[in-house]
Amino acid sequence: MLRYNKNPIITPAQVKPSRPDFEVIGAFNASAIKMNEEIILLIRVAERPVPDQDKYRVPLFDVKREHITFLEFDKNDEDCDFSDSRWIRTKEKSYITSISHLRVARSKDGLNFEIEETPAMAAANQYETYGIEDPRTVRIDGRYYITYSAISDIGITDCLAVTEDFKTFQRLGLVFHPDNKDVVIFPEKIEGKYYALHRPSTSVFGKPDIWIAESPDLLCWGNHRHLMGTREGYWDNGRVGASATPFKVDGGWLEIYHGATKDDRYCLGALLHHETRPWEIIARSKEPILEPKEIYETEGFLGGVVFTCGVIPDEEDIHIYYGAADTSICYAKSSLEEIMGSLEYYEK
Amino acid sequence: MLRYNKNPIITPAQVKPSRPDFEVIGAFNASAIKMNEEIILLIRVAERPVPDQDKYRVPLFDVKREHITFLEFDKNDEDCDFSDSRWIRTKEKSYITSISHLRVARSKDGLNFEIEETPAMAAANQYETYGIEDPRTVRIDGRYYITYSAISDIGITDCLAVTEDFKTFQRLGLVFHPDNKDVVIFPEKIEGKYYALHRPSTSVFGKPDIWIAESPDLLCWGNHRHLMGTREGYWDNGRVGASATPFKVDGGWLEIYHGATKDDRYCLGALLHHETRPWEIIARSKEPILEPKEIYETEGFLGGVVFTCGVIPDEEDIHIYYGAADTSICYAKSSLEEIMGSLEYYEK
Repeated sequence: MLRYNKNPIITPAQVKPSRPDFEVIGAFNASAIKMNEEIILLIRVAERPVPDQDKYRVPLFDVKREHITFLEFDKNDEDCDFSDSRWIRTKEKSYITSISHLRVARSKDGLNFEIEETPAMAAANQYETYGIEDPRTVRIDGRYYITYSAISDIGITDCLAVTEDFKTFQRLGLVFHPDNKDVVIFPEKIEGKYYALHRPSTSVFGKPDIWIAESPDLLCWGNHRHLMGTREGYWDNGRVGASATPFKVDGGWLEIYHGATKDDRYCLGALLHHETRPWEIIARSKEPILEPKEIYETEGFLGGVVFTCGVIPDEEDIHIYYGAADTSICYAKSSLEEIMGSLEYYEK
Repeated sequence: MLRYNKNPIITPAQVKPSRPDFEVIGAFNASAIKMNEEIILLIRVAERPVPDQDKYRVPLFDVKREHITFLEFDKNDEDCDFSDSRWIRTKEKSYITSISHLRVARSKDGLNFEIEETPAMAAANQYETYGIEDPRTVRIDGRYYITYSAISDIGITDCLAVTEDFKTFQRLGLVFHPDNKDVVIFPEKIEGKYYALHRPSTSVFGKPDIWIAESPDLLCWGNHRHLMGTREGYWDNGRVGASATPFKVDGGWLEIYHGATKDDRYCLGALLHHETRPWEIIARSKEPILEPKEIYETEGFLGGVVFTCGVIPDEEDIHIYYGAADTSICYAKSSLEEIMGSLEYYEK
């Protein structure tokens, strides 16, 4: 794994806020795809209202008035819990102190990006009042399908959108009910069905594991199967989730996934799915293929995090665009041989 | 609402345990449907191993050995939490102290039932290790589709099965990922699509509310929409969920749902869905149509609970089979006029 020596390639300072009274605090977790001769990132941009001396401000989408606004909380309000800078909790509700939207960036060389000045997609309905996050893009039949997490006080859901040009985007509805995150869709039908990996957050018995579902039409999903759990004693003993769109390799489908320890150190690893039975895992990385080491990965909004939503394989290399410390976007290059070499094969 | 004067109509004592070392502690929450000239209930039967003096016993399905077995915990084990008789919690896992299966009962008059001596469907795979619960039956194109909750240490999911005769049952897979409960399917396509109500249990922001999803084939579900939440100041201020298969009435679809207060008093009410846009609620019961009052409803395994999985409308009456106190099955009769009269219409 070779990190680019000028990492990060995109920082919050390079991203224009969506409005003058907001500031960008994160540009990270971008989907990545090659369209024509360009690399297109769809960046998760996290913003917050410019801080005020006396009040905490919480951004959110106002469904009735159809725009993003913010609430204010007196810093001395004893009915509110301000102890974690990411959240504000009142007796009735939890709020997030930032709101994310998706922003397009384009590059000819895959390293130097031109970032658009306005959001491509931003919170727009009741499921998105706390923002939209962590997009993944997959090309199917010449169209680009985007899955993303929608956050609101009615839960964390996964939505689907489609674009042909990364200029106009059409929402296609909620594909997984709350709570769910980390949806990636396989780029072609396998034996007549579409497949997706997803990560339900179960509230009573279950654990944050990866599941697989199938679909006739990309819109409706069923035959959910538990695919893969955490591993005691490994780098992914706390939680796991799909990360990048899987791609075909000799012997199956390769998925770059993320795993975290119980104290939230996020690394990347690989999975090999069976070619025609993607619900079977053949092999899994024993050690991470990328782990937080550099200062831009260990320090930031959430230090100790590398997380990808976008990997582009080509003839020679595997290009990994990854979020570092929930703050910036970095680039690293690996090879198919190196990633396949990380795999520990399951016993038959 | 007229309760049958010989309620309950089915008690645990009438149900033969599935094995001699188990005892039946609940026969409740049954789906109900008319097939030919019979009323067929699919009863949730909860069993537990016969209690031991020194040990707590937890029943579960052993996936590898493909049968139901039980674990034993020393009553003096300080690493286990035995404080709630429904659960045993260790550091690693939570267990349920009973396990449910589904049992067929048949009746000519709808009041006197012949209960089969063996389970119709019982835990049979990794998603069902803690049992299967709360079935709903819907007749579609001459076949009987059953949705039920499957409980295991990987979450609470909803499964689909189909039967033509209530003798052999075919599993059709998981239709909703964890955590989810209370799935009811509308009995016919509406403008070309199947619809189901479901109840995700969100873990971070959301609440236990009713959602609606659509499907082309009953197997895969999407376009999830939040349908209906709890109501402050009402009988359903704590949680809501669909209960019985909806049925067509003049002006829409009538759904008998359950609502609970914040301290878990479960009642039944009604919802009126728009005829062709079932994701629109037109009216909702202001007061419950049935609430726990009789001794068999207020006292039992979980007192203060009336809960239905099966309502049969006919020309004259609405026949309600309901679980009382998570212990027994009762019968009550209402009329369309009475139920429609409970509805408070939403303002346009």
